[in-house]
Amino acid sequence: MESKTTYKVFRFENEVCWKSGLHGTSCAPGKPDLEISNPPEFKGEGNAWSAEEMFVGSVNACTFMTFLAYARHKSLPLVSYESDADGVLDHTEGKWRFTEITLRPHIRVKSKEDIEAARTIIEDAHADCFITHSLSLPVKIFPEIRVA
Amino acid sequence: MESKTTYKVFRFENEVCWKSGLHGTSCAPGKPDLEISNPPEFKGEGNAWSAEEMFVGSVNACTFMTFLAYARHKSLPLVSYESDADGVLDHTEGKWRFTEITLRPHIRVKSKEDIEAARTIIEDAHADCFITHSLSLPVKIFPEIRVA
Repeated sequence: MESKTTYKVFRFENEVCWKSGLHGTSCAPGKPDLEISNPPEFKGEGNAWSAEEMFVGSVNACTFMTFLAYARHKSLPLVSYESDADGVLDHTEGKWRFTEITLRPHIRVKSKEDIEAARTIIEDAHADCFITHSLSLPVKIFPEIRVA
Repeated sequence: MESKTTYKVFRFENEVCWKSGLHGTSCAPGKPDLEISNPPEFKGEGNAWSAEEMFVGSVNACTFMTFLAYARHKSLPLVSYESDADGVLDHTEGKWRFTEITLRPHIRVKSKEDIEAARTIIEDAHADCFITHSLSLPVKIFPEIRVA
């Protein structure tokens, strides 16, 4: 007999509203509003989040949140997690698009014995990141794991 | 003689830092910090932005910002722009991923004569959105344009 898992479908919402010039507000249900504008590269003033930063940030956040969930599940004693990310926007095959995102998580654990577990967890989190699965570009990860 | 346009390459940065539990902070250079957490669907408390909301928000914001830039370039008198977006996260081909994002921009212009121009601009903005070009899923758009 065949066993089949049934999965739920999730839906995430957003609203943007124009304020003036190249400025607006980005809203998610029940969350503080986020001021957004064009980045300075594209005539914005650079004091509010750009769509490009939200995009790169969403990949960094998804990998991070997946790591936290898996670390909790495996009872990994985590001391700190910081991750630098950058995304390259390039003009290729006639279109502007992101062509690569790089994540550099710096993970601190309590003891030497936890290093390998942390490495497995960050690799799994990277492989399972929902948002990375939704992109047409490679996401590279270079984890650096040390004892605090 | 062949004419060739040279394009710049842009780089966008982000940093996440763990705070506690399933909470952290997402930072973009020179911008206010954004509190992030897992969404309630995945054991978060739901009072901070999730990676999933940032992701859907980035597509909505990119289309919006491209619209604003094109509208300015074409001197379109804009009265208001609000856009609802939602993204569907589904389990397909063995992986969780976003399978569709839908944008519903509600655009208000000053006069009947501006409706067609606004329609062309939103269609161009959708076609040219950098972030939409970076996804492996379809982004659908249903603009509704009226005189204010």
